[in-house]
Amino acid sequence: MKNIAILGASGSIGQQALDVMREHKSEFNLVAFSVGKNVTYAQSIIKEFQPELVSVQNEEDINKLNHLDVELAYGEDGLFKVATFHKTDLLLNSVMGSIGLRPTMAAIEAGIDIGLANKETLVAAGELVMKKAKEKNVNILPVDSEHSAIFQCLNGEKHKNINKLIITASGGSFRDMTRAQLEDVSVEDALNHPNWSMGQKITIDSATMMNKGLEVIEAKWLFDLNIDQIETVLHKESIIHSMVEFNDTSVIAQLGTPDMRTPIQYAFTYPERIERDAEMLNLAQIGQLNFKEMDFKRFKCLQLAYDAIKIGGSMPVVLNAVNEVAVDLFLNKKISFLDIEQMIEKEMNEHQVIKNPDLETILGIDAFYKSKDYEV
Amino acid sequence: MKNIAILGASGSIGQQALDVMREHKSEFNLVAFSVGKNVTYAQSIIKEFQPELVSVQNEEDINKLNHLDVELAYGEDGLFKVATFHKTDLLLNSVMGSIGLRPTMAAIEAGIDIGLANKETLVAAGELVMKKAKEKNVNILPVDSEHSAIFQCLNGEKHKNINKLIITASGGSFRDMTRAQLEDVSVEDALNHPNWSMGQKITIDSATMMNKGLEVIEAKWLFDLNIDQIETVLHKESIIHSMVEFNDTSVIAQLGTPDMRTPIQYAFTYPERIERDAEMLNLAQIGQLNFKEMDFKRFKCLQLAYDAIKIGGSMPVVLNAVNEVAVDLFLNKKISFLDIEQMIEKEMNEHQVIKNPDLETILGIDAFYKSKDYEV
Repeated sequence: MKNIAILGASGSIGQQALDVMREHKSEFNLVAFSVGKNVTYAQSIIKEFQPELVSVQNEEDINKLNHLDVELAYGEDGLFKVATFHKTDLLLNSVMGSIGLRPTMAAIEAGIDIGLANKETLVAAGELVMKKAKEKNVNILPVDSEHSAIFQCLNGEKHKNINKLIITASGGSFRDMTRAQLEDVSVEDALNHPNWSMGQKITIDSATMMNKGLEVIEAKWLFDLNIDQIETVLHKESIIHSMVEFNDTSVIAQLGTPDMRTPIQYAFTYPERIERDAEMLNLAQIGQLNFKEMDFKRFKCLQLAYDAIKIGGSMPVVLNAVNEVAVDLFLNKKISFLDIEQMIEKEMNEHQVIKNPDLETILGIDAFYKSKDYEV
Repeated sequence: MKNIAILGASGSIGQQALDVMREHKSEFNLVAFSVGKNVTYAQSIIKEFQPELVSVQNEEDINKLNHLDVELAYGEDGLFKVATFHKTDLLLNSVMGSIGLRPTMAAIEAGIDIGLANKETLVAAGELVMKKAKEKNVNILPVDSEHSAIFQCLNGEKHKNINKLIITASGGSFRDMTRAQLEDVSVEDALNHPNWSMGQKITIDSATMMNKGLEVIEAKWLFDLNIDQIETVLHKESIIHSMVEFNDTSVIAQLGTPDMRTPIQYAFTYPERIERDAEMLNLAQIGQLNFKEMDFKRFKCLQLAYDAIKIGGSMPVVLNAVNEVAVDLFLNKKISFLDIEQMIEKEMNEHQVIKNPDLETILGIDAFYKSKDYEV
């Protein structure tokens, strides 16, 4: 029985993680979780899984839950309590945005293995997080389908034999549009991802290809590679979730139907696998897998991500923070789709890079760009 | 430095194995090899690699080599001497047909790891060979691209988590033809394989799909699975070399350009990988991978192979022996392409199965079907 804690239990990944736990009640035990404002959801999860500790965003929401037999917490302090809960074997960090960074560091400090769905944590502070994880002998287990794929492809293989990673990209909601056609796309269109059922932020990030950019940076830190060892390829079916090319020319790939519960479960069971009662891949039925070279002009955000990690230091923090703000502005219909990349590029151009930023500096830069008045 | 011996050094696999050794002179040392009648070739290999022991098929050919500083042998006794040469770390068995069986057993008995390109060995006597290998703690390392792919996909994975193997099939020279169109195909057409450069026998086996049938049987023994855990899928590009589906729905695949030197090298270096100076896979350039359900009516020989292994006992020996004879008759233009499957089916129908045959029985049945007068 593995004790699981979840940061962000009401999000898309959090909900699918609970599906995995429902499917395997004898394998996993939910000991703690956090939600934001969805108290009704929290209540049903408490009743179903009977955890020991629950945190909500706002203090006043505690009153709605205190008739239940569970320890309650709230706010940032609550996130920390959940992240470091003493009975946890594995913490699934599935909050959205850089808010996941500090609790992740605290969990690592407490020696708790991390299932990481919050890619912003590694984008902003990959070097610090991986260093601390190594020091504390903590596993950082990827939950993104692409990184889980790579992680699986590396089973039984040696790091020195890796030539490169090939991360596949579906192309998102607008993959068949030209840049000119992107001028007037709506929020509703952007949220209509062809393959994956995901949260709003990541669905927009898929449409801009920033999601792939964040994944490239995340992969660099997770797998300890140079950025020029990480390539992307357009693969609209999202069946090959990613690949590793080895020095002997062999390429190992992980494939499957697009279902986030598979990588979530793998993070929960690693290094073991357990059965899933789910649809198996049928390549004959799918018939065809397509691949196309990445177009960095069409997908400017991906170029910006490569630029940011090559520049290094505090630049990826800026990339990520401004992207979070811009996506939020787009979702609230304050800016256009193409404004997202323009906002990020402008801020990156004006940013004075700080080398080797520590955690406080990273969080300071992140907060600065999130509270800045962008005059839109 | 690994000491390699090769049975069948002048065949397609043997020659490509020597390419691998040429590319990595500091890694591999050729200590012994056998050829059939190609004495000129043997002479050049002796000069280039300076092995200690060489065997040829016929006694009279020894005279053409005995001016060279090498121990010489001939015939079946010579094959045994090469197979069991005391300095060998790994024996590559790349002879064609069931002649590879007895020397393989002798090498296993001598505790020598086997690189197995001779699939007929496992088709005829898989149970005995694998049992002996286990007893002697000897590795049987697959050299076929499909089995090498599966072997690589299983790196770091547990046997109990395997759902099934998915072996890809290019479809061979006649993949786009109907059965009616197969009536009059020529030997020359059959030898024109679209993807792989291989020997004559295996190229015809690819066209009849018997090659896939032999691979299915070989996979059953190599990976210790039930026959219903082994599926095939048509994949005309031969880029995905085979796949493993696990119980959590994940599929791991091995991909690469069609080049036999990669699986040969992997068998030589396992569990390590070393660099190859060769073309890397470029999926964006390839653009598209296609998959189609296997058609057992169109490819009757594959159905016969599944039938043979399901019946078990001596039946796969018959399948394999009659196939060897039939392919030879077809290559010599004595029978038509479709006669191959008819000959095999007829003999299988008339065969009285012997359960749990020992090695002598297997070799006796093999010899019987190879010397039989088929009245063609």
